[in-house]
Amino acid sequence: MSQYQAPIDDICFNLFNVWQLDQYWQQQAELKELIEADTAKAILQEAAKICEQQIAPFASVADQQGAQLKDGAVTLPQHYYTAYQSLADGGWTGLSGAAEYGGMGMPKALSMMVDEMLCSADIAFSLYPGLTAGACVALLQHADEATKTLYLPKMYSGEWSGTMCLTEAHAGSDLGIMRTTAKPLDDGGYAISGSKIFITAGEHDLTSNIIHLVLAKLPDAPAGSRGISLFLVPKYLPDAAGKPGKRNAVSVGSIEHKMGINGSATCVLNFDGATGYLIGEPHRGLACMFTMMNYERLAMGSQGLGAAERAYQNALSYAKERLQGRISEKDANKAEPIIGHADVRRMLLNIKTSNEAGRTFATWVASLLDKAKYDNCAVSASRANLLTPIAKAFMTDQGFDACVSAQQVFGGHGYVKEWGMEQLVRDVRIAQIYEGTNGIQALDFMLRKVAVDQGETLQALLADIATELARAPVAQAAALTSYVSRLQQLTKVLVNQDSRAQSANAYDFLTLVSYVIYGYMWYKNLAALSALEQDSDFVKAKQGSAAYYFNRVLPKADGLFALLSHDSDAIDKLAAEQF
Amino acid sequence: MSQYQAPIDDICFNLFNVWQLDQYWQQQAELKELIEADTAKAILQEAAKICEQQIAPFASVADQQGAQLKDGAVTLPQHYYTAYQSLADGGWTGLSGAAEYGGMGMPKALSMMVDEMLCSADIAFSLYPGLTAGACVALLQHADEATKTLYLPKMYSGEWSGTMCLTEAHAGSDLGIMRTTAKPLDDGGYAISGSKIFITAGEHDLTSNIIHLVLAKLPDAPAGSRGISLFLVPKYLPDAAGKPGKRNAVSVGSIEHKMGINGSATCVLNFDGATGYLIGEPHRGLACMFTMMNYERLAMGSQGLGAAERAYQNALSYAKERLQGRISEKDANKAEPIIGHADVRRMLLNIKTSNEAGRTFATWVASLLDKAKYDNCAVSASRANLLTPIAKAFMTDQGFDACVSAQQVFGGHGYVKEWGMEQLVRDVRIAQIYEGTNGIQALDFMLRKVAVDQGETLQALLADIATELARAPVAQAAALTSYVSRLQQLTKVLVNQDSRAQSANAYDFLTLVSYVIYGYMWYKNLAALSALEQDSDFVKAKQGSAAYYFNRVLPKADGLFALLSHDSDAIDKLAAEQF
Repeated sequence: MSQYQAPIDDICFNLFNVWQLDQYWQQQAELKELIEADTAKAILQEAAKICEQQIAPFASVADQQGAQLKDGAVTLPQHYYTAYQSLADGGWTGLSGAAEYGGMGMPKALSMMVDEMLCSADIAFSLYPGLTAGACVALLQHADEATKTLYLPKMYSGEWSGTMCLTEAHAGSDLGIMRTTAKPLDDGGYAISGSKIFITAGEHDLTSNIIHLVLAKLPDAPAGSRGISLFLVPKYLPDAAGKPGKRNAVSVGSIEHKMGINGSATCVLNFDGATGYLIGEPHRGLACMFTMMNYERLAMGSQGLGAAERAYQNALSYAKERLQGRISEKDANKAEPIIGHADVRRMLLNIKTSNEAGRTFATWVASLLDKAKYDNCAVSASRANLLTPIAKAFMTDQGFDACVSAQQVFGGHGYVKEWGMEQLVRDVRIAQIYEGTNGIQALDFMLRKVAVDQGETLQALLADIATELARAPVAQAAALTSYVSRLQQLTKVLVNQDSRAQSANAYDFLTLVSYVIYGYMWYKNLAALSALEQDSDFVKAKQGSAAYYFNRVLPKADGLFALLSHDSDAIDKLAAEQF
Repeated sequence: MSQYQAPIDDICFNLFNVWQLDQYWQQQAELKELIEADTAKAILQEAAKICEQQIAPFASVADQQGAQLKDGAVTLPQHYYTAYQSLADGGWTGLSGAAEYGGMGMPKALSMMVDEMLCSADIAFSLYPGLTAGACVALLQHADEATKTLYLPKMYSGEWSGTMCLTEAHAGSDLGIMRTTAKPLDDGGYAISGSKIFITAGEHDLTSNIIHLVLAKLPDAPAGSRGISLFLVPKYLPDAAGKPGKRNAVSVGSIEHKMGINGSATCVLNFDGATGYLIGEPHRGLACMFTMMNYERLAMGSQGLGAAERAYQNALSYAKERLQGRISEKDANKAEPIIGHADVRRMLLNIKTSNEAGRTFATWVASLLDKAKYDNCAVSASRANLLTPIAKAFMTDQGFDACVSAQQVFGGHGYVKEWGMEQLVRDVRIAQIYEGTNGIQALDFMLRKVAVDQGETLQALLADIATELARAPVAQAAALTSYVSRLQQLTKVLVNQDSRAQSANAYDFLTLVSYVIYGYMWYKNLAALSALEQDSDFVKAKQGSAAYYFNRVLPKADGLFALLSHDSDAIDKLAAEQF
């Protein structure tokens, strides 16, 4: 069984030293009385307890038992019920929920750190509260007052949970061609009919009701993605008292047998004229759903980071204990801990430097969202928007690679189930796929986030970073500065390409930008060390890790610069039948 | 279920056009009467039939049923028995076996292509004939005449199978500290005692006997790896007639529950004073075992390639059928096959160019082994030796990445078991770990294959490649030439580093050399096209793929050049407790 201890020290370092969010919180009227550094740390420690004690130790049990469908009802691994109740009892399910509807009103930067812990503990479990929180975000922004008053308090409290129902068998990334219909009823409601697949937490008995957010087409819908509307479809229709009443016409057809996240019920849901309520404007459902989707995409980043953090902790502990080989020529019969081997250190440092940069990055993006919300700051909003596909794609790519590397540290033991490392690889793999594949993220980044404004948002960010580095007292900044400058040049070239070339370059460009951004994260880590005890292991570790990142990870970006300097038309040289 | 069709055309292109092995075979007295192009092709087609019809369609059944241990006996998925019998009946189990002991005496270049097919069909299944063939190679080279006469014909015929028993719970990569003992008996035999783990095909009833090759220490053994001897330990001791007689004192303690290759019985084997026979000289067992190990390491490369080939075929077929999105602005309700999307092409071309270069590489290494054997050619032997860790590590790294990318092409469908893509990922993952982790391969390459002769073997190969490219009529050769030249320079630098720096650089250096070597493989592919119909899809596909490799894959090497140009001491900046 793999172990897990929440990295509270590094989380607090990021919140308070790197991004100084405690100071920011004190400047906000809405947050000032609610949270300061000590309460934040206490909240994190309490969340850590639930994750470490009630969820993480049983992740392999959840993997073996999985979600089970019987007679139209889905049951979950037994400890999910008690752990979920603990989360609900402690108010964790409404941590970032709006205070006026019963949420705790905490900033995203804090709840994102709790997300990471939940994902370390068990990605499959994390999906139940995670999707609920995402559904709440969409409802808060797009639903009318009566709907919010009825649904949000129950969802924040953990009594009811949420889902997002987008995909159909023939319509995944291409939602425009979906077929689920919404027929207006006389009472102002709609009859929803159609079949949705891959619906996470689509059916279960963890909560007394499930609130589905469903995309469907109205009879007069324009073709394509501009004709999709969003509907709220409860499993049980609330009665006059707001309690779960009559069963709605939505049922589970089957659940998927998957590579991993077996504790998550991935359902085929059949809507047979189910009663639904329109959320937002007709035909504007995709935009409403993207409010939730963007929230979930950040959560995907937490899945990558969470799994990688747990993988690292276990690989590290194994590397310290496993005796194998001699570091220098010594007693031929006496083996030493493998952490002494250069190649084991290479793997561990690749993981460690990715994880810590990832955590700094996640905190940053979350804090930008907070600034967009509390300060109504347009620059922060557009930067969070720019960085969201990086959080989704790069953090999950890195998370997967990290879990694979950590498994590798275990040698053959990493391949057997007993140690739990292979489960981390299987579980985290999904994060590169769902909520928009990482390829879709790359296109979103290149076309809709960078090219859309001729690179202005990205260039402004890079210029700010360059300015900050120019003032930097940190020696490593010099190397990073040249990468930023090359990236500025390359961006100029790419935004002038046609969209085919941009699409061909998208994935490698997203990855390249991410390497440079992670370099900036390491600069921010270094810059934040001055307030700490310089001789501490924490400071030494950060300094050594940053040196490793700048010397042995960031240079990989040179390969992507080289690749992107070549014409992308090689992608179109083969006709389909020549593949 | 994932499909599979053996890539006979590309295999024949490699054998006959790229490496012109039919001409080579005709020059060898031992091969001349045995094989020419037509017989080789017929042999491949017959092997393809078994793989395509009897093994591949049931790979997911093998995954679900797995090897089962009950009352000390291991049973296998039902179709393994019939498929194995087909292999044995057709002489496939002795395909490359020595003719004087009943083998078919075919060249390695041919049997390696059959290995690829078997691995595409089911890696777990391939291990049973694969380990037997490897054990035969070790016995042929190191056993005495009586042993060879007794064992080899039965093993070539498929009646008996083989294993290699190296690992102990505390001794994996570090075999020197193993504890299994061999006590000399009065009759010239030895009593073997100890416990071995991770023994592939350690127990099963596919064959009437299992011949274990076991590493153990004699009472007077020197410390470390210089005190290990090799023993043959049959499951049943052959009687006077050479039939399986008395049961030997070797028993299965348990079998592992693994991430994948569930059809392979991975056993804990307990030797309780089991009767064994010394193979080769006392204390020289590791060298003898490495005869088998090097054979197996090439087979690992085939696992990477085999899984990746099957993954590619299925991703390609899915990409042609799956309708999703519009390539250019057209009817909003009409989706097009995703193979039109640039990012899907990027994934497919990454896989395709890696697979085809890998196949050319595998054929090359096998042909070098053939030249070493038939011509007693020292240069070929040393080059095969140099390239073996690349075949093991890079081909399996590429194979894993290819399977992950192919799974990604399927989107969410890649994550559910039904399509078989996730099984390919789980199955191929082991190839990066067993038979010496890829980290061990990198150290072997850097320290024992490159630094050991101050880079002479590698530099001689690079010089030959440079000479060949200088004469090349192929335009792309220019780009490749500069990579070769930079690699020559870098090699000079690395061989003069201390062993700590070399160890730190080993993995990235192996990967870098591999990218350049694969570039050379693409050059060889292009150069071999002149004999073919220039307007054919085959030729167009090769030309387009080569362009993709040179423009969009090989440039990744620039990142590794950059990384390796930095001091490796970043690897040692953290004390163990600072990780």
